[in-house]
Amino acid sequence: MKILFIGDVVGSPGRNMVNEYLPKLKRKYNPTFTIVNGENAASGKGITEKIYRGFLQAGAQAITLGNHTWDKRDIFEFIDDAPHLVRPANFPKDTPGKGYTLLKVNNLLLAVVNLQGRTFLPPIDCPFRKADEIIAEVKKHTPYIFVDFHAEATSEKQAMGWYLDGKVSAVVGTHTHVQTADERILPNGTAYITDVGMTGPYDGILGVEKEAVLKRFLTSLPVRFEVTSGREQLNAVLMNFDNQTGKAEDIKRIIINEDHPFFE
Amino acid sequence: MKILFIGDVVGSPGRNMVNEYLPKLKRKYNPTFTIVNGENAASGKGITEKIYRGFLQAGAQAITLGNHTWDKRDIFEFIDDAPHLVRPANFPKDTPGKGYTLLKVNNLLLAVVNLQGRTFLPPIDCPFRKADEIIAEVKKHTPYIFVDFHAEATSEKQAMGWYLDGKVSAVVGTHTHVQTADERILPNGTAYITDVGMTGPYDGILGVEKEAVLKRFLTSLPVRFEVTSGREQLNAVLMNFDNQTGKAEDIKRIIINEDHPFFE
Amino acid sequence: MKILFIGDVVGSPGRNMVNEYLPKLKRKYNPTFTIVNGENAASGKGITEKIYRGFLQAGAQAITLGNHTWDKRDIFEFIDDAPHLVRPANFPKDTPGKGYTLLKVNNLLLAVVNLQGRTFLPPIDCPFRKADEIIAEVKKHTPYIFVDFHAEATSEKQAMGWYLDGKVSAVVGTHTHVQTADERILPNGTAYITDVGMTGPYDGILGVEKEAVLKRFLTSLPVRFEVTSGREQLNAVLMNFDNQTGKAEDIKRIIINEDHPFFE
Amino acid sequence: MKILFIGDVVGSPGRNMVNEYLPKLKRKYNPTFTIVNGENAASGKGITEKIYRGFLQAGAQAITLGNHTWDKRDIFEFIDDAPHLVRPANFPKDTPGKGYTLLKVNNLLLAVVNLQGRTFLPPIDCPFRKADEIIAEVKKHTPYIFVDFHAEATSEKQAMGWYLDGKVSAVVGTHTHVQTADERILPNGTAYITDVGMTGPYDGILGVEKEAVLKRFLTSLPVRFEVTSGREQLNAVLMNFDNQTGKAEDIKRIIINEDHPFFE
Ligand SMILES: [Fe+2]
Ligand SMILES: [Fe+2]
Ligand SMILES: [Fe+2]
Ligand SMILES: [Fe+2]
Ligand SMILES: [Fe+2]
Ligand SMILES: [Fe+2]
Ligand SMILES: [Fe+2]
Ligand SMILES: [Fe+2]
Repeated sequence: MKILFIGDVVGSPGRNMVNEYLPKLKRKYNPTFTIVNGENAASGKGITEKIYRGFLQAGAQAITLGNHTWDKRDIFEFIDDAPHLVRPANFPKDTPGKGYTLLKVNNLLLAVVNLQGRTFLPPIDCPFRKADEIIAEVKKHTPYIFVDFHAEATSEKQAMGWYLDGKVSAVVGTHTHVQTADERILPNGTAYITDVGMTGPYDGILGVEKEAVLKRFLTSLPVRFEVTSGREQLNAVLMNFDNQTGKAEDIKRIIINEDHPFFE
Repeated sequence: MKILFIGDVVGSPGRNMVNEYLPKLKRKYNPTFTIVNGENAASGKGITEKIYRGFLQAGAQAITLGNHTWDKRDIFEFIDDAPHLVRPANFPKDTPGKGYTLLKVNNLLLAVVNLQGRTFLPPIDCPFRKADEIIAEVKKHTPYIFVDFHAEATSEKQAMGWYLDGKVSAVVGTHTHVQTADERILPNGTAYITDVGMTGPYDGILGVEKEAVLKRFLTSLPVRFEVTSGREQLNAVLMNFDNQTGKAEDIKRIIINEDHPFFE
Repeated sequence: MKILFIGDVVGSPGRNMVNEYLPKLKRKYNPTFTIVNGENAASGKGITEKIYRGFLQAGAQAITLGNHTWDKRDIFEFIDDAPHLVRPANFPKDTPGKGYTLLKVNNLLLAVVNLQGRTFLPPIDCPFRKADEIIAEVKKHTPYIFVDFHAEATSEKQAMGWYLDGKVSAVVGTHTHVQTADERILPNGTAYITDVGMTGPYDGILGVEKEAVLKRFLTSLPVRFEVTSGREQLNAVLMNFDNQTGKAEDIKRIIINEDHPFFE
Repeated sequence: MKILFIGDVVGSPGRNMVNEYLPKLKRKYNPTFTIVNGENAASGKGITEKIYRGFLQAGAQAITLGNHTWDKRDIFEFIDDAPHLVRPANFPKDTPGKGYTLLKVNNLLLAVVNLQGRTFLPPIDCPFRKADEIIAEVKKHTPYIFVDFHAEATSEKQAMGWYLDGKVSAVVGTHTHVQTADERILPNGTAYITDVGMTGPYDGILGVEKEAVLKRFLTSLPVRFEVTSGREQLNAVLMNFDNQTGKAEDIKRIIINEDHPFFE
């Protein structure tokens, strides 16, 4: 089973990159499932139903989210009717939406789980214990479990990787918007990377206009953060899970930008 | 001018890697200057005079630090007599040590600057304004300026990269202990990477025993963080600066571990 | 039912004040139950069995804790055999100790609950939901419920007060070590104060030597925080609960220090 | 010299209380100067020119601010032409406005200084060093110096009190919106209180509608924070400074609400 996962899609530049390159990536790599983190897809903050449907049409089977889940009001209108959309599972009990979903392609069942860290982020339920709970449930149905762990601190992300090593097929990090170079297969067969990176502007600061961000750091004055324009990038990972055991066999980083052109 | 920079060296496993591979890296790449971040060199926290001297003997010309600068008491005994040691320049006025140094090799002068971020870290002086101040001073002496920006948040690190683009030869990040894959030459000629990563244990959590870190995340109980043993890694970057202008020509990531063996 | 609650006892100066004034306060006010927050009782950090027993001997019926619960190793030896000791109930599942206890005096049953906030404090389980859970349980046994909410932010503390108004007899805050002047009976009958304050040194910074704390704020250098000596203070509240309904009838602040002498 | 200082005025309920009670307080206490913290005066966030002028008309001579200084855009239009308005002095260099002002009444000169803390608040310049700098300047003109230290942590506030004890006439804290009961004259003659409290709604959470705040704590979902209506309160302190030395002679807390009615 091959999984393509695309890191935090930011605004229309990010959606453009998905629309342009997802078909090409699918032709080149032929993934069984494609998953996209869409927490910044609507002008940098949140997601709308239209954008969610756009991702599915572009070829994704699941959309994961993160701390920006609720930024666009539209989310409350459609999240409970969006079977392919998952928000962090350790959000407080009774919040709308769901934290994992089961996808089926050609009799292959993949569990897609979204969790959020707590270091330098709002206090929510324990992501480690919530992971245990969900795994106990989905293991009944499938050995293939993919976890998007949306978190800030490298320590918490590595901790989750080691905690779930051998229990899930992959733990990939999102949220920092910078791809890390530490992709590896952990000793018990879990594919791991601290952060997949972002998909959107190549010359901003995490996708945002750099003048505004710099003004903020230099003056603490209020600024409007707008998704910047110009050159674009796509960050993703491609993973391969063993068809019997669900264990990961390899994880490969993908970067597409002017400095790293795509070859079909 | 070629610069080799080695990311946060953690404990004796990190020092072993420096001792074993720094000579090999120097033979292979022949850097003009070698710089090492040593904030975790003494059992994961701080640095001692003996370790500082060991780095110089192993072939480094400058040692940078970070938020763990003061963790070993020994530092207060030798920091003001250690010409090759720099701690974050934006620590409060009148703290011991210095924030930059000028190194000379074969008539080539390199300014090595250390700065620390403030997002998710203790409040200190503004690193951006402090950078301006130091650059104004050292530009009188040399066009080659190397900045180790020790910071947690990817936004603050990218902001520093863009802020100093064209004003310094390189801005490389440290502190998260995970190498990022976003190395690039910014449009005005500054080499940039969000984090160089760490040098030390390969199978811990940021170098620390994983059982202790996991216990901490799961229970919030007090634990002792010890540098872990087992397999080791080295993370570094190699940069090339133009000999006339000081502008960066390229930046290349280096990872040495069991999954990425070193070839002489 | 009359309850006397004494705010965070800090080190030996705090214990001295309890030993000296608790008998006098009991003579003067004749409380049915006396509760002491002891999270800083052992040299400013944590508690030992000897100190715990000392509080009981001095006349307390329950000891509450907070974020310093685990600071002295001794706690792990006796917490599970200390029926009068409660630590925050929303600590992660399976941590030692318990989050509430039922005390009995003359056929009157009082539930003493300890909860900890999450704003500016480590992420733990939701204190609001945990409060609901415990109240549902203890309401079966008694209408008298006392909550020590150990938290930093005034917003979270007021939120807890309003959340539990009418469900418990009292919500009193601890942790900031400064008594607030907002004691009141909320509209549905719950006694509330944002913080009871501390018991210990009168001329330190939250009980700690001021030179060390100032050095820390001015330089960020490492310092040893020691409980300071000199003049002492005691901070407490006295509450009265209706004997039929458990609703609070009044809450009165108590301050004893050189500027506020105690009158028998 | 008598100083009346009114704590954070929140929205129209707070402005109503100022308009109703400031004249009465002036008649009763006859302060030489009246100062109002206005950072939340415009619907809970920031201040407008109209509101600023309203405070002066109501009888205040200076308006201090805090972390909400920039929340209403109008501030950028008038702050540099508002001689009686001060924002935290340790905001970064070159931000609009000023950090202290000198007021004159009947040949008595009072320096009003505003500073902001850094613990649990955005990183800005060091408030302790900035205090030294301003005091060195204003001491040339007057021995009467009043400091509004807008900060979250009780430790940082007490630290500032002790740091400035004997150097200024008063250090009064703002920002937490809850009045503390620790008002005192420090040994070297400085009046101190950790927080003066707020002026506005009596039944909200720091002035905000409690349903919204509770929803936020329980669910982390986005909510709109609106100033709540209903019963109102005023929190203030009255200080007396010696006419020769500028040293404080006393500090008295003022609370006006339904539970603490005002007597003329
Ligand atoms: Fe994101
Ligand atoms: Fe995020
Ligand atoms: Fe480090
Ligand atoms: Fe660090
Ligand atoms: Fe405490
Ligand atoms: Fe505490
Ligand atoms: Fe305020
Ligand atoms: Fe404030």
